[in-house]
Amino acid sequence: MRYPVITLTTDFGGADHFAGAMKGVILGIAPRARIVDISHEVPAFAVTGGAFAIAQAYRYFPPKSIHVVVVDPGVGSARRSILAEAGGHYFIAPDNGVLSMVFAREAGAEKVRHITAARYFLQPLSQTFHGRDVFAPVAAHLASGVPPARFGKRIGDYIRLDFFRPNRTGKRVWTGLVLHIDRFGNLVTNLHIDEFPGVRTRPFELNVGLEKLTRLAENFSAGQPGELLVIPGSSGYLEVAVREDSAARRLGCAAGAPVELVLY
Amino acid sequence: MRYPVITLTTDFGGADHFAGAMKGVILGIAPRARIVDISHEVPAFAVTGGAFAIAQAYRYFPPKSIHVVVVDPGVGSARRSILAEAGGHYFIAPDNGVLSMVFAREAGAEKVRHITAARYFLQPLSQTFHGRDVFAPVAAHLASGVPPARFGKRIGDYIRLDFFRPNRTGKRVWTGLVLHIDRFGNLVTNLHIDEFPGVRTRPFELNVGLEKLTRLAENFSAGQPGELLVIPGSSGYLEVAVREDSAARRLGCAAGAPVELVLY
Amino acid sequence: MRYPVITLTTDFGGADHFAGAMKGVILGIAPRARIVDISHEVPAFAVTGGAFAIAQAYRYFPPKSIHVVVVDPGVGSARRSILAEAGGHYFIAPDNGVLSMVFAREAGAEKVRHITAARYFLQPLSQTFHGRDVFAPVAAHLASGVPPARFGKRIGDYIRLDFFRPNRTGKRVWTGLVLHIDRFGNLVTNLHIDEFPGVRTRPFELNVGLEKLTRLAENFSAGQPGELLVIPGSSGYLEVAVREDSAARRLGCAAGAPVELVLY
Repeated sequence: MRYPVITLTTDFGGADHFAGAMKGVILGIAPRARIVDISHEVPAFAVTGGAFAIAQAYRYFPPKSIHVVVVDPGVGSARRSILAEAGGHYFIAPDNGVLSMVFAREAGAEKVRHITAARYFLQPLSQTFHGRDVFAPVAAHLASGVPPARFGKRIGDYIRLDFFRPNRTGKRVWTGLVLHIDRFGNLVTNLHIDEFPGVRTRPFELNVGLEKLTRLAENFSAGQPGELLVIPGSSGYLEVAVREDSAARRLGCAAGAPVELVLY
Repeated sequence: MRYPVITLTTDFGGADHFAGAMKGVILGIAPRARIVDISHEVPAFAVTGGAFAIAQAYRYFPPKSIHVVVVDPGVGSARRSILAEAGGHYFIAPDNGVLSMVFAREAGAEKVRHITAARYFLQPLSQTFHGRDVFAPVAAHLASGVPPARFGKRIGDYIRLDFFRPNRTGKRVWTGLVLHIDRFGNLVTNLHIDEFPGVRTRPFELNVGLEKLTRLAENFSAGQPGELLVIPGSSGYLEVAVREDSAARRLGCAAGAPVELVLY
Repeated sequence: MRYPVITLTTDFGGADHFAGAMKGVILGIAPRARIVDISHEVPAFAVTGGAFAIAQAYRYFPPKSIHVVVVDPGVGSARRSILAEAGGHYFIAPDNGVLSMVFAREAGAEKVRHITAARYFLQPLSQTFHGRDVFAPVAAHLASGVPPARFGKRIGDYIRLDFFRPNRTGKRVWTGLVLHIDRFGNLVTNLHIDEFPGVRTRPFELNVGLEKLTRLAENFSAGQPGELLVIPGSSGYLEVAVREDSAARRLGCAAGAPVELVLY
């Protein structure tokens, strides 16, 4: 590609030099790369938070974009580094499940390699910052045209988590959870409108916190001030929202809180 | 332009994938675009905060830059999307007044279009994330050479707010407000040195919180430690500052707090 | 350079338009420049924090990168602006010591110029935002090929701080400090593994807060949950860390806290 795109999703925050150092490494190897931050504010060590962020964003990038995801509590341990191909995109990450939601969206059609080709790593290799020393240079070499197979052999036993799948707990009942609280305090559940299209046409109850919600709105403005709404969010997941206010604060919910859907 | 510039000013914060998804959309359509973040930390739903940020920044960008401003509490409602030309720059935003300060600076010489050409939108079009589905692709197509007229017809009844204009409340008295508290705790008022050049040559009082300030300094270093100063800030607005400290904390003022100028 | 790299390290935070305005100025002068944020979250006015951030990051960028560092409590005063060449990189900053750690790493081989060539500054020149009006345009002109000597004469009396050097306080005892608390709560000390290689081979004590640490681990995963570890961090400095937790919170330490190393 003439202008290869490399995205970064990390839990590094904005106060440290970590993301900057990764970008320096990338530009030293692939000077034409376009580097895009998806988020550096994944909560520290939150593999599920990183899994959510990259899964919502990658499809909006051009084909063959390279997505580097560094939420890596096991850095320096025996955990593997992986390079995955899925949905026409590349993903570089620790093998800790952080790509699970991407793999699920791509219907399990991913090809995953164990990154072992140390000649592409920065030397000396630190044991605490593989973002800079492994993931960034591998991404940059890939962007520069090194074929995926050069970085390591395919594996099948990489980690797949399924924290994001709702459970059917009754004939008409599913139990899910709040995947994410967004900037506006909207609760993003793991109940996807494509899996539960019935909420558009049939009566339903969504139980969250101490509230029972029964009305689907198409957007935030459909609500009265203070009214809790169920909305098919921009990622397709049902969201609980309050017009120009924080549903999370209103309901006292955090990421991970349970939700229950009853479809009549 | 060989390297068209697209800037982003939003209230999306840094923790979500929202700005990243917008950038992916842009790069898919306009791979050469240079994307620059002005701020993603406009307070949630704060149209006036977004209006301030873009108005301070746009003039420092090259001519024909495209400025996307997404502070959009009414997303999905009947509010229109607009494309404006002003001062040799392009602006893409919801029609909610967020461009008011830009239009005022350009002396009302703006041309504004209602964006209706759905063929440039992402499909399916969400009702909650027009930043990704409308504003980003329109900006990218504009950057790629689509003429402004293709996006929709000119309108004259777009929203213009004037929250940022001081009121004359006496022969020598003006009432204004704190437009913005910056990172350092400086209070940026809506009193512009070009409108009140007399503060440089005549005695004045600036009343803010419980304090009466009477001295204009040219920079922060002119102050004694702890001294409250009035400074012609980097945007030309009078600012209240304390050397290496926060005037906002010292005075207990937030954005929106009233100020009063008496010019003798 | 075909794609000159300009990095930004500031205490501007993310909420204001300051960094965005700098980028606009740069792109207006050097449209091909690749602008990379190292951090805008250096604590306000914290020269030592800025000194740490740039010193950890610059070496990872391509040769001839231009690093702009704006932590500038003395803006508008008589403090000078400087352009330094060190280690094959360029640095543009106020002369307040913020480049001290870079100069120390480059063994004092830097060449420093006092930036005086006002024809490269933005006009009118504000007294409160030299990042936009001086540092950004000088960086962009340098990126565009203007030779360093054009910006001003060499000087030798620029400010060098040594806050980051440990003191020998006994035959086997050194007193140092916590240079930085990173995003994960790791305490980065000013004790560099290259200066104290003995910690790898000999018994030692590292006293910090109320704790005495005696074990060097190679990475975070080597620790038991809750165990305080000493680790040679990714910058080479000894760090105090807790696996998947915050050592800073555990020890009640902030940047600047004293540490003591005893090497047996």
